[in-house]
Amino acid sequence: MSLSSAERLRELRRHMAEHELDAWIVPSEDPHQSEYVPACWERREWISGFTGSAGFAVIGRERAWLWADSRYWLQAEEELEGGSWELVKLGHPETPELGRWLSETFRRAKVGVDPQTIGLKKQRDWEAALARSGSTLAAVEENLVDAVWTDRPARSDSPLQVLDLRWSGEAPSAKLARIQERMGEAECGALVVTTLDSIAWALDLRGRDVEYNPLFIAYLLIEAEHATLFVDAAKLTDEAKAHLPDSVRLRDYEAFGEALDELRGRQERVWIDPATCSAWVVQRLGADDHGATLHEADSPITIMKARKNAVEAQGARDCHVRDGVAMARFLHWLERQVEAGEEVSEVGAAERLAALRAEGEHFQGLSFPAIAGFGSHGAIVHYRPDPEGGGRRLIDTSSLFLIDSGGQYLDGTTDITRTTCYGDPTPEQRERFTRVLKGHVALARAVFPKGTTGKHLDVLARLGLWEAGLDYGHGTGHGVGAYLCVHEGPQGISQKARDVDLEPGMLISNEPGYYEDGEYGIRIESLVLVEPRPGHAPAGSGREFLGFETVTLCPIDRRLIDPSLLSREELAWLDAYHERVREALSPHLDAEERAWLEAATAPLPA
Amino acid sequence: MSLSSAERLRELRRHMAEHELDAWIVPSEDPHQSEYVPACWERREWISGFTGSAGFAVIGRERAWLWADSRYWLQAEEELEGGSWELVKLGHPETPELGRWLSETFRRAKVGVDPQTIGLKKQRDWEAALARSGSTLAAVEENLVDAVWTDRPARSDSPLQVLDLRWSGEAPSAKLARIQERMGEAECGALVVTTLDSIAWALDLRGRDVEYNPLFIAYLLIEAEHATLFVDAAKLTDEAKAHLPDSVRLRDYEAFGEALDELRGRQERVWIDPATCSAWVVQRLGADDHGATLHEADSPITIMKARKNAVEAQGARDCHVRDGVAMARFLHWLERQVEAGEEVSEVGAAERLAALRAEGEHFQGLSFPAIAGFGSHGAIVHYRPDPEGGGRRLIDTSSLFLIDSGGQYLDGTTDITRTTCYGDPTPEQRERFTRVLKGHVALARAVFPKGTTGKHLDVLARLGLWEAGLDYGHGTGHGVGAYLCVHEGPQGISQKARDVDLEPGMLISNEPGYYEDGEYGIRIESLVLVEPRPGHAPAGSGREFLGFETVTLCPIDRRLIDPSLLSREELAWLDAYHERVREALSPHLDAEERAWLEAATAPLPA
Repeated sequence: MSLSSAERLRELRRHMAEHELDAWIVPSEDPHQSEYVPACWERREWISGFTGSAGFAVIGRERAWLWADSRYWLQAEEELEGGSWELVKLGHPETPELGRWLSETFRRAKVGVDPQTIGLKKQRDWEAALARSGSTLAAVEENLVDAVWTDRPARSDSPLQVLDLRWSGEAPSAKLARIQERMGEAECGALVVTTLDSIAWALDLRGRDVEYNPLFIAYLLIEAEHATLFVDAAKLTDEAKAHLPDSVRLRDYEAFGEALDELRGRQERVWIDPATCSAWVVQRLGADDHGATLHEADSPITIMKARKNAVEAQGARDCHVRDGVAMARFLHWLERQVEAGEEVSEVGAAERLAALRAEGEHFQGLSFPAIAGFGSHGAIVHYRPDPEGGGRRLIDTSSLFLIDSGGQYLDGTTDITRTTCYGDPTPEQRERFTRVLKGHVALARAVFPKGTTGKHLDVLARLGLWEAGLDYGHGTGHGVGAYLCVHEGPQGISQKARDVDLEPGMLISNEPGYYEDGEYGIRIESLVLVEPRPGHAPAGSGREFLGFETVTLCPIDRRLIDPSLLSREELAWLDAYHERVREALSPHLDAEERAWLEAATAPLPA
Repeated sequence: MSLSSAERLRELRRHMAEHELDAWIVPSEDPHQSEYVPACWERREWISGFTGSAGFAVIGRERAWLWADSRYWLQAEEELEGGSWELVKLGHPETPELGRWLSETFRRAKVGVDPQTIGLKKQRDWEAALARSGSTLAAVEENLVDAVWTDRPARSDSPLQVLDLRWSGEAPSAKLARIQERMGEAECGALVVTTLDSIAWALDLRGRDVEYNPLFIAYLLIEAEHATLFVDAAKLTDEAKAHLPDSVRLRDYEAFGEALDELRGRQERVWIDPATCSAWVVQRLGADDHGATLHEADSPITIMKARKNAVEAQGARDCHVRDGVAMARFLHWLERQVEAGEEVSEVGAAERLAALRAEGEHFQGLSFPAIAGFGSHGAIVHYRPDPEGGGRRLIDTSSLFLIDSGGQYLDGTTDITRTTCYGDPTPEQRERFTRVLKGHVALARAVFPKGTTGKHLDVLARLGLWEAGLDYGHGTGHGVGAYLCVHEGPQGISQKARDVDLEPGMLISNEPGYYEDGEYGIRIESLVLVEPRPGHAPAGSGREFLGFETVTLCPIDRRLIDPSLLSREELAWLDAYHERVREALSPHLDAEERAWLEAATAPLPA
């Protein structure tokens, strides 16, 4: 039996009263700060009815608010049922800053939250904001939504997948030894690992508990001589047990809280990552109460995982040949369909591409839901074609088609965007596409000294647009995992990127764009590997330079390029790239596809 | 009677024993974190004999250490007299990080420091480092060096200079009202101002207490309805008293500590800037001891001062005409001297330039000691020609001459570097000069959206060098005051710059370089004003773009340029710049100088 929205709120408020709470906050986060939240933890969606991927709910004694950013204002207004909920437009000029809103809305109030669903930093910010009006934030270990949510889905019990050394390039025992060495340097006796991709990376294990990300729900506690994996026993296949080194002990997922309690009395410092661990972890460690002594710093795993080893780097190159073949076959097919006047919808195109990817060796699934946007849909940066709605829009010769998609393979994760046109692009479209391309090429060609970050390089991808008074509103690049998450840190290329040096082996996207609201969208995205460039600096200078190797292999639509806007160097880069694409993909295509690729990668007129 | 180095240490250790201290730290900082420290506060120099501008001394019971960075290793080794002192090479691969050194050197020790000479953040870092080995940092209000330094110079009693509204463009009453508005927004009842340039800016007063910076020693306490200036009465001319608004009360400089004590009991928050205020301020406010409630944030004055108003911006343009005339006359004179075989030393050149500057209207002095380096001296970034030593080196046709200098005028502060060659530059020198020029031009031409910082733009100045595996080891740009300090924050252009948006009115240097150790140095520096570029973005896009107006007016040596390395756009920028220089300076030159300028600013062959 399913409750109505009003009933859910009434039930929840009954539990709030029992805990003497004036309000209850429901963030979107799960205990592992996952990008895609498993169904069992979609509490904010269940209580509010709002299905967006970000935003949070605040339920007071009389009123209930849903905070959502501008991407979701329209959707939230539709989804929040009449009367029970008020939408607060995050980022709207008339919306106060959250801290101010909290201190204005609640006076001498007791506001509750499940500490598993709130990051440590956010908890500290909210506590400070509430304190300004004499209110307190109470961490309540029992989640009040769960108490009401009678038909809540169970945690997934999908079995673990062992990732062979052939794909990971480094055994878990070696990875754990490196992590333990870093712990020793930081004088820490324990490291708490809560993010699922770090656990999967450290143990060469994968799972199916999270959509698009090959992750499994677990915690990992690494100590000086051993480690403990907290995971539901149902997931543990014999193969997984045999795979794990002897130094890895196994405990039930639910036992993790007790394990944190046990760390309280210990002498050595406990390493937590304040950017990713939940407030609950710190609460159980009893840090404020004569408990464990904390070392708050980035987890050492994050940067290790970001630096792909030689096997992972080769895997990235290999899977990009298969991914490029799927993309080339798709682009050839789509062009033929449109030219023949066959009806292809956005959803149909995305399905065809998924099917072509699935034919590739070592394919494991998609790395995210494809963004397939024709015309004005291409200008919506996070567009996802809906089979029942806008996704039925047909692709024809009247505008541009943008497709951003990716796959998961045993040897790597891909993420590629191409923008194509099957009619005559307008002069404005060609000019803007070419300016986006200039940015893409400037970044791909960049050679830079050690110590350079993505924040420093971001401008290279924008300069061609800035010269014409144009820009795009998203970052230029994000880190990408090795058969892991399509978004991973710590590095990035953007004005807001963290101050993290680019280092050899990092895999990162290069994706400048341009969006004309209500008209069309342009994005050119390839993945690049950071590589050393020995010999680039004059001998004896002591300087070390790095550059990018573009691993994505797929033509960039020549019909959208105005060669007169490109420098000699830019044209040379593009022709050389297209030559690489042709040589890598041709052997895997049939004659018709090969002829298409030949034309699509021909040198441009200078 | 002057004490020997060993006697000074012996006396100091006697005072250390009285305070039961195991060590005493002598930082370089004065109570106002000034770049140039007045003589009365040059304690580290007096106790150690080391005259460098940075570094600090640590005196233990038996040993004494002087920490200095690589610029000063040679000099420090010479200046530290035998036996008493050990040099610790800051930044050397074998030198431990300071925190580690402190915790390894001192165990269960009581280490003392005068809290007026240590910034708040540094105090906190050192306390944490010492705590790791059971040691403590004791803030001792009596400076133990002063207790020993019998012939210590008195504080300067130079009279204050009133800066007319004609130059400042905004009266102190208006500035104070703006500051008080920001204090109200931050819910603060008091703002503690300790940096001398902020005080000078807020009150439209200048002084002569600090070399090269027109500053006076004072504190300023701003409250909701009034402000109090703490300054030695001897400085207060009748004109200065008449100039100050009625809302500004006057108290003695020495009374500032008491004024901080008085804030302890108050309800409202006290705003301090943790980046610039000394540990002593927080100690006197009693923040750790039921004293004032602190609001720790950047001082609101810093950003107001950085955004030059229309009068200050026009002043920058105007004084740069006079400064450019002095530079042009100097470069013409130097070229004639070298061509005629006359002997001109580095020091002689700097003196000639200073004399030419002094002929300019509204001239008040130099803004820093000129860096005049011929040949290998040009490769020393912070070179200062010594009249008794290297500064006697003669300038001839065999290498490059680099001159970095600036003046103080009532209407502005200048800072310019030009590199010239009076013989035949080598192909390598021309190539590298041209690459530096490419960076200078790329930055000067840049157009960028609001929200861009100097950290984002820095790469533009380096790309031409990076392409050839070259780089330079300093930042690209620093903020410059309006008849104030030649270095001011918060903005900067460098990989390490703070995350501060560039805003219209900010004055900043554009100074890429290249240094071939032991051979020659190249730097091209002009000041630029950030200006809005309305109409640059397509109408209705909502985007706002900014650009730079180069205000420095002086030819860039054409003999050092290889035009084949420049793009059409770069050549066009340079020719247009030279045309502006010619038109602005020619009317102020004699016939011979004018003819020289005509040739020096002629268009380059394409």
